[in-house]
Amino acid sequence: MATSEEEVTLLGVVGSPFLCRVQIALKLKGVEYKYVEDNLNNKSDLLLKYNPVYKKVPVLVHNEKPISESLVILEYIDDTWKHNPILPAQPYQRALARFWSNFIDDKCVAPAWKSVFLVDEKEKEKAGEELFEALKFLENELKDKYFGGEEIGFVDIAAVFIPIVQEVAGLQLFTSEKFPKLFKWSQDFHNHPIVEENLPPKDQLFAYFQARAQSLATPK
Amino acid sequence: MATSEEEVTLLGVVGSPFLCRVQIALKLKGVEYKYVEDNLNNKSDLLLKYNPVYKKVPVLVHNEKPISESLVILEYIDDTWKHNPILPAQPYQRALARFWSNFIDDKCVAPAWKSVFLVDEKEKEKAGEELFEALKFLENELKDKYFGGEEIGFVDIAAVFIPIVQEVAGLQLFTSEKFPKLFKWSQDFHNHPIVEENLPPKDQLFAYFQARAQSLATPK
Repeated sequence: MATSEEEVTLLGVVGSPFLCRVQIALKLKGVEYKYVEDNLNNKSDLLLKYNPVYKKVPVLVHNEKPISESLVILEYIDDTWKHNPILPAQPYQRALARFWSNFIDDKCVAPAWKSVFLVDEKEKEKAGEELFEALKFLENELKDKYFGGEEIGFVDIAAVFIPIVQEVAGLQLFTSEKFPKLFKWSQDFHNHPIVEENLPPKDQLFAYFQARAQSLATPK
Repeated sequence: MATSEEEVTLLGVVGSPFLCRVQIALKLKGVEYKYVEDNLNNKSDLLLKYNPVYKKVPVLVHNEKPISESLVILEYIDDTWKHNPILPAQPYQRALARFWSNFIDDKCVAPAWKSVFLVDEKEKEKAGEELFEALKFLENELKDKYFGGEEIGFVDIAAVFIPIVQEVAGLQLFTSEKFPKLFKWSQDFHNHPIVEENLPPKDQLFAYFQARAQSLATPK
């Protein structure tokens, strides 16, 4: 638990899957925090101060020290509050968790965004195929109820991106025929009390993705 | 030290900056290993077996368990052999080390490759400008002799990529005028006995970059 001496602030934009990762992790640890909503189209001075490199949410500010990039934040949370571990204890299992979380960011996130945002049908189809290929690897990697075993862990939290995009885009990625294990995982994951509580409502998800599409379309 | 019960094998291609990261880390830990050279243009069955996702070196195989992706391997090495730590002990310093290492992979590696491989002068110039902007952040981040303080650490090892590319491309990135701190760092880093011992000779570096350019130019 965060003690009363600790100040934990989270900068985010509701609907962001990356914010969602951090919210789930903080909730798993029982860390209380102050949430500050930013604006995708008019970034706050606070965000520019705390994440001058990428200028992106989420940013976790712990006792005035800012940490950016969602997977780095997850590691920080696990290093700082040791109970209810997110990463496994064994070095090899930790390496696999890092490998697959990076894989999700490298191979799933970009084609998933494209599946949502692209207008050109051919390019959209290509992105869908790339995502399909990446999901085959994940399907193969899923050995237990969750990627983390019987409890949700680092890879499950990283993978929150995928069911969210599926919901927004109306993609039928996780049908039980194509990906039986991922299909079951997405149901169990959604129904996990901490995940359920931290997933943004549909209308806020749609609003976020619309704002994001708008910010991408606006010349900088 | 790795005991005699342990089997540590490293698959690589001499001249690869990513291989070099792992070699420096293993040397810092005093871990003995068997090195197996792969072939960029004709990948071995061993590589395809151990890294079916990316099919890339380096791969560290520890007691028959393979780990891929150089930064994931560095974390594994630090988790497994605890002496001579590569990552700092404090969670916040660990987070910064991870943030800046990812930054090097995200913002320096691609423009650095382009600076070496691109033929089009205009695109090459654009890549050079991107790299310049990224290096400004790193210059600003360098507070001590090394990124890791008085000893080399995670970010220094990740950053081995930059002086290598500078050497191959003959880029004048680290002049003392443009980047006085990075310039001094690159000298200290090169002269560090473990780094010096593990940097490939110039002719092997050039051979690697030529083979890599060739493999990129060959349609898959």
